[in-house]
Amino acid sequence: MTTVEDPVLWVYVTAADAEEARRIGRALVEERLAACVNLLPGHTAIYRWEGRIEEAAEAAFVAKTTAARFEALRARIRALHSYTLPCLLALPAARGDAEFLAWVRAETARAEG
Amino acid sequence: MTTVEDPVLWVYVTAADAEEARRIGRALVEERLAACVNLLPGHTAIYRWEGRIEEAAEAAFVAKTTAARFEALRARIRALHSYTLPCLLALPAARGDAEFLAWVRAETARAEG
Amino acid sequence: MTTVEDPVLWVYVTAADAEEARRIGRALVEERLAACVNLLPGHTAIYRWEGRIEEAAEAAFVAKTTAARFEALRARIRALHSYTLPCLLALPAARGDAEFLAWVRAETARAEG
Repeated sequence: MTTVEDPVLWVYVTAADAEEARRIGRALVEERLAACVNLLPGHTAIYRWEGRIEEAAEAAFVAKTTAARFEALRARIRALHSYTLPCLLALPAARGDAEFLAWVRAETARAEG
Repeated sequence: MTTVEDPVLWVYVTAADAEEARRIGRALVEERLAACVNLLPGHTAIYRWEGRIEEAAEAAFVAKTTAARFEALRARIRALHSYTLPCLLALPAARGDAEFLAWVRAETARAEG
Repeated sequence: MTTVEDPVLWVYVTAADAEEARRIGRALVEERLAACVNLLPGHTAIYRWEGRIEEAAEAAFVAKTTAARFEALRARIRALHSYTLPCLLALPAARGDAEFLAWVRAETARAEG
């Protein structure tokens, strides 16, 4: 169960490609772990791997959810993801449109709650 | 009026398409509700609508403003927007370049303030 | 030196073009000022310049780092950047995947620390 004041999070997640982002994103909305997901256009990741700097094409998506649902969303993303360690960061919304915040909370409330 | 310590916000907003994002973004800068706006490349939104999972092409933009100006920015976006309920989330900047933060505050200070 | 609880930041930075974003992004990872960088696809910036509203194509990247490393990252970006005043905002991660947060902290720990 969520309360009216449950903080809304803007969660940034990387994925191997657009198809993986779409597959995970759809699951999150279907399972009410996110109110909506935005599949971002592809980007290039720069990171260190075995001592070398690598560049690779990948995808990212943003999931809008609540703090109360974050842990379930996080675990589900990890379970569905091809990466051993995806980038998964939740940025808190300090402010927002009150109707939109209420919609995110309602969409992610558990049916069985 | 804003104070030196007025928090700077990174505001994420979705729009129906690139033209709507551009029209709203220009108005926000013209009216000093945002110091600058970045019109992001298009993305795909996934959401639930009347019980079904839908996917739709849409646009998004980021507006950089201050907490003091957020409510006026929010109301203006709602007034200009074609959506009944746009995604509108303000993520606070915990840190930033001090000169850039000062520039955002100066650009969004009201002329009549 | 960083502690286990050092906050992780999602840092949004604009650049003149994709090549500048890549050049700065690689330097940040090479110097362990960021654990990884995502070079985002190009966007259009809207801003006021000498009293007129301008639009210009530019690039942006996201650097994932820690609060302890932020000041060094900020100074390095300013030193490498062609802009007099780039957009440089650090959004704090309220939550994240614990393994990913630990990886960001480990990657950005100074070799000489």
